Amino acid sequence: MIVRNYRDVEAEPVPDLPGATIRWMISKPQGAPNFALRIIELQPGASSPHHSHAWEHEMFVLSGEGFLWSQNGERPLREGDAIFIPSEEEHEIINRSDDILRFICLIPL
Amino acid sequence: MIVRNYRDVEAEPVPDLPGATIRWMISKPQGAPNFALRIIELQPGASSPHHSHAWEHEMFVLSGEGFLWSQNGERPLREGDAIFIPSEEEHEIINRSDDILRFICLIPL
Repeated sequence: MIVRNYRDVEAEPVPDLPGATIRWMISKPQGAPNFALRIIELQPGASSPHHSHAWEHEMFVLSGEGFLWSQNGERPLREGDAIFIPSEEEHEIINRSDDILRFICLIPL
Repeated sequence: MIVRNYRDVEAEPVPDLPGATIRWMISKPQGAPNFALRIIELQPGASSPHHSHAWEHEMFVLSGEGFLWSQNGERPLREGDAIFIPSEEEHEIINRSDDILRFICLIPL
C-alpha cells in the first residue's frame, strides 16, 4: 500500500496554463497499472483551454466553485460533484470565483 | 458530460458489510469505459473485512479519520490522503472514530 497526503506532494505548474498546478498522486511510479489520480488546482480567474483528447476524464470537485464548459453546454461545479467527460468531447474547466478550485482528475494509463 | 453531486446519488448498503454504504458515481451506466468512481461511507465502528482481489484500488479520503490495514502494516488515514492498494494485497479499511469516514474508491472496469 501507498498512502500520501496531497499536501505532501509537489504541486507542479501545468505547462502553458497560468494559474494551474497538478499533483500526480497515484500513477505509474506508484505502481498503478490502469489509471492515474491527479489533483489539479485552478487559481481564481484561471481556466483550462478548450481542448479534447482520445481519453475520458473522471473528476471530483474537492473544494471551491467553478464551471465546466463542454461542447454540450456549461454547468456550474461545486464541492462533491463527480464529472464524466467522454473521450473526444471538447471541454474546459473555469474558475470565476475568488477561491482556489481544487479537483481530482483521473485518466486512463 | 455528466455532472452529479454525490449527495444526489443513492447510498446503497454494501452486502454483508454493516455500517457501510456505496454510491456508484461514475461507471458503465454513465459511459465510463475503463474505471469506476464510487464513494464509500463507513459509519463509526464499521470496517471492511480483510480481503484481497485481482484488481487494484485507488482511493482518496474526503472526510473523517480511519486506518488502513494491509498485509504490510497499518496506517492512519485522514482527509486528503491518496491510497494505492496493488492487486492481490490483503487490506481492510477501519473507522475507529466517532464520525463518518468518507472516501472515494476507484476500481478498473
